[in-house]
Amino acid sequence: MNQDYIKPNEWSIIEEGFDAERVKSSESLFSIGNGAMGQRANFEEKYTGKTFQGSYIAGVYYPDKTRVGWWKNGYPEYFAKVLNAPNWIGINVMINNEQLDLHTCKKVEDFRRELNMKEGWYKRSFVATLANDCKVDVKIKRFLSLDLDEVGAIKYQVTPLESDVEVVFMPYLDSGITNEDSNWDDTFWNTTKIRLEENQAFIEAHTMKTNFATCTFMQSSVWINGKNVDKKGPSKKQSESFAGHIFINKVEKGTTIELHKFGGYTVSMNHKPSHLVSAAKKVLEQATDIGFDKLLEKQKLAWAAIWKMSDITIQGDVKAQQGIRFNIFQLNQTYLGKDSRLNIGPKGFTGEKYGGSTYWDTEAYCIPFYMATKNQKVARSLLEYRYNHLEKAIENAQKLGFSHGAALYPMVTMNGEECHNEWEITFEEIHRNGAIAFAIYNYYRFTGDYTYIPEMGLEVLIGIARFWHQRANFSEDKAKYVILGVTGPNEYENNVNNNWYTNYLAKWCINYTIEQLQKVKEGYPEDFDRVIGLTKLTDTETAKWKKVADNMYFPFSEKYGVYLQQDGFLDKELITVEHLDKAERPINQKWSWDRILRSPYIKQADILQGFYLFEDHFGEEQLEKHFDFYEPFTVHESSLSPCVHSIQAAKLDRMEQAYQFYLRTSRLDLDDYNKEVEEGLHITSMAGTWMSVVEGFGGMRVIDDKLSFTPRIPKQWEGYSFKVNFRGRILNVKITNTTTDFELQGNEEMSIRVNGERVALQPGKVTTV
Amino acid sequence: MNQDYIKPNEWSIIEEGFDAERVKSSESLFSIGNGAMGQRANFEEKYTGKTFQGSYIAGVYYPDKTRVGWWKNGYPEYFAKVLNAPNWIGINVMINNEQLDLHTCKKVEDFRRELNMKEGWYKRSFVATLANDCKVDVKIKRFLSLDLDEVGAIKYQVTPLESDVEVVFMPYLDSGITNEDSNWDDTFWNTTKIRLEENQAFIEAHTMKTNFATCTFMQSSVWINGKNVDKKGPSKKQSESFAGHIFINKVEKGTTIELHKFGGYTVSMNHKPSHLVSAAKKVLEQATDIGFDKLLEKQKLAWAAIWKMSDITIQGDVKAQQGIRFNIFQLNQTYLGKDSRLNIGPKGFTGEKYGGSTYWDTEAYCIPFYMATKNQKVARSLLEYRYNHLEKAIENAQKLGFSHGAALYPMVTMNGEECHNEWEITFEEIHRNGAIAFAIYNYYRFTGDYTYIPEMGLEVLIGIARFWHQRANFSEDKAKYVILGVTGPNEYENNVNNNWYTNYLAKWCINYTIEQLQKVKEGYPEDFDRVIGLTKLTDTETAKWKKVADNMYFPFSEKYGVYLQQDGFLDKELITVEHLDKAERPINQKWSWDRILRSPYIKQADILQGFYLFEDHFGEEQLEKHFDFYEPFTVHESSLSPCVHSIQAAKLDRMEQAYQFYLRTSRLDLDDYNKEVEEGLHITSMAGTWMSVVEGFGGMRVIDDKLSFTPRIPKQWEGYSFKVNFRGRILNVKITNTTTDFELQGNEEMSIRVNGERVALQPGKVTTV
Repeated sequence: MNQDYIKPNEWSIIEEGFDAERVKSSESLFSIGNGAMGQRANFEEKYTGKTFQGSYIAGVYYPDKTRVGWWKNGYPEYFAKVLNAPNWIGINVMINNEQLDLHTCKKVEDFRRELNMKEGWYKRSFVATLANDCKVDVKIKRFLSLDLDEVGAIKYQVTPLESDVEVVFMPYLDSGITNEDSNWDDTFWNTTKIRLEENQAFIEAHTMKTNFATCTFMQSSVWINGKNVDKKGPSKKQSESFAGHIFINKVEKGTTIELHKFGGYTVSMNHKPSHLVSAAKKVLEQATDIGFDKLLEKQKLAWAAIWKMSDITIQGDVKAQQGIRFNIFQLNQTYLGKDSRLNIGPKGFTGEKYGGSTYWDTEAYCIPFYMATKNQKVARSLLEYRYNHLEKAIENAQKLGFSHGAALYPMVTMNGEECHNEWEITFEEIHRNGAIAFAIYNYYRFTGDYTYIPEMGLEVLIGIARFWHQRANFSEDKAKYVILGVTGPNEYENNVNNNWYTNYLAKWCINYTIEQLQKVKEGYPEDFDRVIGLTKLTDTETAKWKKVADNMYFPFSEKYGVYLQQDGFLDKELITVEHLDKAERPINQKWSWDRILRSPYIKQADILQGFYLFEDHFGEEQLEKHFDFYEPFTVHESSLSPCVHSIQAAKLDRMEQAYQFYLRTSRLDLDDYNKEVEEGLHITSMAGTWMSVVEGFGGMRVIDDKLSFTPRIPKQWEGYSFKVNFRGRILNVKITNTTTDFELQGNEEMSIRVNGERVALQPGKVTTV
Repeated sequence: MNQDYIKPNEWSIIEEGFDAERVKSSESLFSIGNGAMGQRANFEEKYTGKTFQGSYIAGVYYPDKTRVGWWKNGYPEYFAKVLNAPNWIGINVMINNEQLDLHTCKKVEDFRRELNMKEGWYKRSFVATLANDCKVDVKIKRFLSLDLDEVGAIKYQVTPLESDVEVVFMPYLDSGITNEDSNWDDTFWNTTKIRLEENQAFIEAHTMKTNFATCTFMQSSVWINGKNVDKKGPSKKQSESFAGHIFINKVEKGTTIELHKFGGYTVSMNHKPSHLVSAAKKVLEQATDIGFDKLLEKQKLAWAAIWKMSDITIQGDVKAQQGIRFNIFQLNQTYLGKDSRLNIGPKGFTGEKYGGSTYWDTEAYCIPFYMATKNQKVARSLLEYRYNHLEKAIENAQKLGFSHGAALYPMVTMNGEECHNEWEITFEEIHRNGAIAFAIYNYYRFTGDYTYIPEMGLEVLIGIARFWHQRANFSEDKAKYVILGVTGPNEYENNVNNNWYTNYLAKWCINYTIEQLQKVKEGYPEDFDRVIGLTKLTDTETAKWKKVADNMYFPFSEKYGVYLQQDGFLDKELITVEHLDKAERPINQKWSWDRILRSPYIKQADILQGFYLFEDHFGEEQLEKHFDFYEPFTVHESSLSPCVHSIQAAKLDRMEQAYQFYLRTSRLDLDDYNKEVEEGLHITSMAGTWMSVVEGFGGMRVIDDKLSFTPRIPKQWEGYSFKVNFRGRILNVKITNTTTDFELQGNEEMSIRVNGERVALQPGKVTTV
């Protein structure tokens, strides 16, 4: 954890001073993305220090052959890896024949990075004294265009400070790249063609096996004092996976030379493979016609539109403000909801760890954020993604021994196939199936759009209900149905029996599916007939499901009056976290795995996660009991944990605790709580941060088709505000220590509840409560 | 499984007919070894078909860097790999310029292998028609000398059948070999020097990292009609890891040319590294002075001496006879008890799988065999091996979070360090610690030699008792001590709570250690003081141990009247194995791991293993109840399972069942029950086969310092006999349908019990009961 590394600022992420040991961390924190592509904040110029190079194209992956120590039946043969794509940002810089490389410079002064979240650009500046004693001032600005999402732009400025110098810029493309995360050191890219033209270059390459065809492209121009100085054209350098232009210019002391570089990718997901170069030329033409500065103006407008809907303001607490904006910004950099083939990778475009792009995080954490800050269509698109993978989920379940259309969605996936291979997670963390069903319910609850269920969702629900029915077994001993051998959300317990959360979800999934069957039968008879025809579902089968749901076992402790996280929880040595030596934490870095497993320490909310999903099933007294029992054992070593605890603490009006959890979730990466930010950011949990403000502090819920609020505010804040899109109605909520203002857009009135009381909102007017 | 592949024969393993698909299986089955080295039955001549090349030197290993899919804290950094050593058996053969290669021959007739267990040699013969139509009769005999255990000998005979031919023999050494089992495809051997002299060659090579220096050597001569025909000396071929001699001779049709090749290894474990070549020359001189035929005569005598003590005869059942001899033969090929640095690898010298050389198999299965068929010294040497590793066991426990001298012996080791890396086994299959303590008890029980305990064993016991004390925790809920998160002998359940076997062993270990502390204090006060000084053990500490032992929890079912294998066993769907579809077996090849884990199917005896170790703690009625409850769920997919069931079935007088289990254990590899023999033989479980005859059918026990027998005989047998060395007294036992004969060697009388009745045996006389 490092609290002073990033400078507090309401709208920007700022680093000051060059520290070679921080380069990898900053590469993560200053990552940029536009939903279609993204990249770590690697230096454009050569850097020989420790770095983790990464540039990623949404949806492009490689099925790396699985490598494990000991193979277990059921492991997937292939693992979809997030794929480092050819580098288009590279610009080698020579000053008087000396390579500019911050690792070998005599001196680096005034090093500063800024990620401007309001406007969507990244800037780096420094004064470097090279080994040959040339001293130059360097400023670089970079952004990935939201308007032309195949294109990024770089302005690279060099000013010699003490003498006239020769500046050589070599902007280049490089497809000879590798992955940090690779199982067998296979080659992932095959370069097929390089075109090095006047000011433009194109490298065509395709991924091995998956055969995604890409064209990586660039176009550069060089300017001094607003005058183009590359008229005679650059010289060229080419190898089998490299294409570079060489611009050589004399620059007078105090004068700035700048390289404008546009680059990016055209991909066969969006163009015919044979048209990739022409598509690249077209988008380059568009970009250069607009020019760097105007494209940046458009970028600001595009981000302003995003912020207009999704911004959360916090008054009186800069770090909290910076944290929430960083979370919202990164979520939008990762996924904008434009393309139903994409999803929200746990590291977005900021790293490779974990592979795959889709976890249960999407359903449990991200959908609420996107529903409320974008629109129904975006959320529906995320649900459709799972519908499109239903066949593969059924195949996956078959592989594990299930039958008759039972579906087990993968723990991690890029294309619907499982690509995770730890048995205790891949085979046993089956609660993910429940999150997918819950998201269907949640989508309807929030948007009011029922049509997804008859059209698609019902099939998904049937596959999931079938899975739970088959996965439970009857225990003669308990005279109840049990679910054995699972890993719950708390991954610090493996292969346990009767994880309460899993059992509860299973029961709920079955009951919900049966309800929806009835509802679709009555309201959408054609869809019903189609789905029944497809699934061959009979009343006998649903009766069997019902028997399992009605007789599900839930471990409960009479002594403590709480549900037990799993059968064996009370046999553990129940020593609370506060008695843990600080030197032993995080336990996942200090303790052996067996020790973690038999400890009572909880990686992330488990029963409390269930109480979050189904809060109306439990009274506040029950919540309090469970919170007081489990929270003291929770170490929050998962990024997905603090947000749920923040929401529950707020609900219990424990605002100081809620605030601390909020800080932990919102500044997890900025302050590097878990000492791993250099591997990339925790994107999906950032949606949990949003929830902890809107649902936690704001107390927003949907009850009986109406928005409801129970506003609270941490004492550290003067006020905060957020906006939600509820069924096409935009509502702006501002909360201070004393009042809450609701401002409804549009032209219809809307009824909400505040602290349980009905409040009628008039459009265009501020209602203060 | 394949019952007709190996021809039934009392003393030999015989294969007839060439089947390229069986080559790898036969390479395992026809393996030879002499305790110091061993090798798979690879062909001497070139073979381009599927083969698994393996030649191994006892004690020589490589610490391969661990490779896992997902690293977990506590995993060992390095994994000691059994190491394929340079090849010295190779003999390329050219007939009229055509390479002899059974994979490319036009025709292979009369192919036959024989492993003569009585005399300790391996023979292969065939008639081959080469691609150039030359037809030759080939006979090869090979053995690894027991007398000169650094040397092996090969006689390679070729007889042209249809025309005069030119025969080229190229005997060679090759250190450019690789391992089947390698994590990172590292190079394991570094060749430092090659000497290619007249008729002799030497390759010096050392293992990377561990730096075992070896000299691989050979000397060859060629003979026609008893006349040496290589007087003028061979020509030579050398490369950076290869040394070959080339002998070219014309051979008339019907005449036999033979190559005699001696080869083997001298190793730095036994010689100074600088003396390896001179040591090799010396042993070559000894071997060639004796000559192939006389060395083979000595081999027969040496094996006769082994058989004299360890043979088990079975009358009326050739397959059973062949099975038991194969087991006894392989055990003696693997380990002869001459060197306390060595141990009994699970695959001996027949394969690489599993790595390491020492498992709990040694203590639980092998020690009884070696105690009874060798002598006290051999058994003690195996105990000392663990004493020598005590420090590393303490370090291993520290790594997992234990302290204060607690020792956890590794699951798998070559040098005392853990080299296994599946968390559910490495960290959780802790019952291995109990087997080591039990072996100390068992050694004293059988040999009467108490001195091991004060001299060494007590320290081991204290380390183990400390481990159990720390590993258990008090469950407030059960008001008992529990042991959470273990894997019992049944590896088809992982991370379970209160595995009965583990809990029982833990309690026993603590109590036994406390007893021995008292006994040593009284009988060996100096040793006691030394050990207390070393371990800083106090009465307060032992009182804490005692509290754990006295209050240990054992899951028990009132309904079934049986101890439960673990807390959750009764929640499983208790469908017995007989209801399992045959197509689903073996389940470890057909089912996903999670399905196996939540099934009731037991890989190997678990509670029944405990009842075997502590049979005097339980009545026969209890045994019967537990046998009847657990046996129907046992799939015996571990090689260590059927022998225990055979012993327990015999004890319950269920002789047909006992016989079937006996066949399964004794012919596991010969009939390839588990479809994996090509990876190597199951050496350690072979000692279990011996136990199933001597302890199962013969009912041999040590009770109150006396041997006791309860002889039984399967109805398929006419009679059987075995011999045991009990405290230096050799007793021969012959059992038929009607009588049991005891013949005592030596000159003192001895009292035994037969079916509970005291019987006095006179030396040199046969007593019939």
